[in-house]
Amino acid sequence: MNYMNTAARHIHTAFLSPQHVAEIVQTRGLQNIFAGMVEALRADFLRWQEFDKTARVASHSATGVIELMPIADAKTYTFKYVNGHPGNTQHGLSTVMAFGVLADVDTGTPLLVSELTLTTALRTAATSVMAAQALARPDSRVMALIGNGSQSEFQALAFHYLMGIEELRLWDVDAAATEKLMRNLQGTALRLVKCSSAADAARGADIITTVTADKTKATIVTPEMVTPGMHINGVGGDCPGKTELHADVLRLGPVFVEYAPQSRVEGDVQQMAADFPVTELWQVLNSTAVGRTSDAQVTVFDSVGFALEDYSALRFMRQQAMELGIGEPLPLIPALADPKNLFSVLGAPAVALNKAQTAAHAHV
Amino acid sequence: MNYMNTAARHIHTAFLSPQHVAEIVQTRGLQNIFAGMVEALRADFLRWQEFDKTARVASHSATGVIELMPIADAKTYTFKYVNGHPGNTQHGLSTVMAFGVLADVDTGTPLLVSELTLTTALRTAATSVMAAQALARPDSRVMALIGNGSQSEFQALAFHYLMGIEELRLWDVDAAATEKLMRNLQGTALRLVKCSSAADAARGADIITTVTADKTKATIVTPEMVTPGMHINGVGGDCPGKTELHADVLRLGPVFVEYAPQSRVEGDVQQMAADFPVTELWQVLNSTAVGRTSDAQVTVFDSVGFALEDYSALRFMRQQAMELGIGEPLPLIPALADPKNLFSVLGAPAVALNKAQTAAHAHV
Repeated sequence: MNYMNTAARHIHTAFLSPQHVAEIVQTRGLQNIFAGMVEALRADFLRWQEFDKTARVASHSATGVIELMPIADAKTYTFKYVNGHPGNTQHGLSTVMAFGVLADVDTGTPLLVSELTLTTALRTAATSVMAAQALARPDSRVMALIGNGSQSEFQALAFHYLMGIEELRLWDVDAAATEKLMRNLQGTALRLVKCSSAADAARGADIITTVTADKTKATIVTPEMVTPGMHINGVGGDCPGKTELHADVLRLGPVFVEYAPQSRVEGDVQQMAADFPVTELWQVLNSTAVGRTSDAQVTVFDSVGFALEDYSALRFMRQQAMELGIGEPLPLIPALADPKNLFSVLGAPAVALNKAQTAAHAHV
Repeated sequence: MNYMNTAARHIHTAFLSPQHVAEIVQTRGLQNIFAGMVEALRADFLRWQEFDKTARVASHSATGVIELMPIADAKTYTFKYVNGHPGNTQHGLSTVMAFGVLADVDTGTPLLVSELTLTTALRTAATSVMAAQALARPDSRVMALIGNGSQSEFQALAFHYLMGIEELRLWDVDAAATEKLMRNLQGTALRLVKCSSAADAARGADIITTVTADKTKATIVTPEMVTPGMHINGVGGDCPGKTELHADVLRLGPVFVEYAPQSRVEGDVQQMAADFPVTELWQVLNSTAVGRTSDAQVTVFDSVGFALEDYSALRFMRQQAMELGIGEPLPLIPALADPKNLFSVLGAPAVALNKAQTAAHAHV
């Protein structure tokens, strides 16, 4: 079978596990990863109209949802698989688990399979900073961090490194979560202030970041907590029936979103009428819409997470992995010397056929 | 950091490469794999109405298409990634590459990431046999195999093992493809007859199987090639603009499809009016519709490939892999002792932070 000896065209699919991504972050440094991701996100948001923005495909069940989020430009296709199962923590599982694929549009070859649980936390915080750099007061130094769960350290450090935040005012209904956050941040220059309520946390803050997890119509931030000049970075109100901001908070100043058709269904603006004015962030970044217009204005970023952010994050992480030689090959696609000879993957045909004959009565 | 020492809940995602699937086939025997897959497919087709049949999501480009094909029942969710790039063979790449994921609906946990290039060839042949067992004459012994490319050996052997086919009449516009097919089948009991045209191949055949690859409106099978009692297994006419059967062939007898809404767009029946009668195969299997009604009747299975077939194939292969201990773990999802402590995946926080500080000016 001389075709078995022909050098097969190699399909290069790389794999990044959470440990690989952690190694990339440790090698580059978390601050550099955030800075690089913000730049990658900004570059992609600035060419917003080049993307084929497909609707996400959701499969709902009694316990949760599984979604596929595809997006593509002329060169690169990505999709993310992500679930949402609020009851998972009862089984010791995460509520949200994610992975993604990056593929070459010209040939359809999958180039990367990557974890996206850790990477999503990084890209969400980077997106929040990108929005805050455009919308918050540049002299912001104090941030309320309401919700001290799995996203909180990423938000804390991204704002510390890239927005000059020096003090965090912490609140979570779960005191153990706040203790965990304080342990994780103990080596940093951040001043950590444990607060007694969300309202206490908001006191004196320049920025309020909400990253709570409850799948309910909550009102974590009420109008009396908001003072002139604040920027509100609302991250946790991100699916139908899950909100964090009182409707009146959304009326205190201009509201910015990633992709209006999705945000009106999933964001805190799901509470508002269909014609409630929102501005897409990419328009602020490319100066076709105004962001903050005065130091006294209240600004709201109603973030839900959009497929383009995963595209940017996957492409950025792939670049880091290639530069650092981190990751491993994943043999996902057969390497064929002759594309018409897929059968050759089964091995020397005689072997397969003989085994088929001798095992014909085995249980399958 | 005592939380680092707590036993983490393990997320079990298994990985099957083409080599793993080949090992499963070699161990079980190809005949048993086909028999098991036909049974798995039949069991799933019989509970057709239990499935959430989402439309496939296609991303089109100048050179091809990338598709996601999700489907779920109450317990199991699967999706397939598959491309179609006719120009790929010029770059030494396959026209079609595929992989898939099987996940637990209750928790959203991805349980299996698997190659689906080889597995799709197996499930397509198994589906063809399942249809032929319901639609072809049981005394069929001679099959015309038109198109001798990557699918052909799988069709040949599935029909040999499970439908009693003893003679194959072969034709392909590419003589090298026919030579390759004959080499691959040389150890079998099949009589192989090289023919001079598609019409020559059809002469005396009980079944005509078409597995050609050209993305054109072709007429591989014309009415004068069809004799009473024939079953036509049309596999290669499977996307808009890609057909194999002359429209009049579809008028010679009842036409059976997998899922009518999809087949009317992608199958050979795309040539017919929207009200052209077709019967869904699952209804024949569960006896709510009739299949073949006489030995003289001509029957047509206009196959396009449906997400449920990938669901069945993924579940079947996962079962084989678990029984045989084949495959390997894929660390796709972080294992967290505390689901709120995703940050712990970055390693001892101090390490990450110190490196961040010392590397702060490194190029990213």
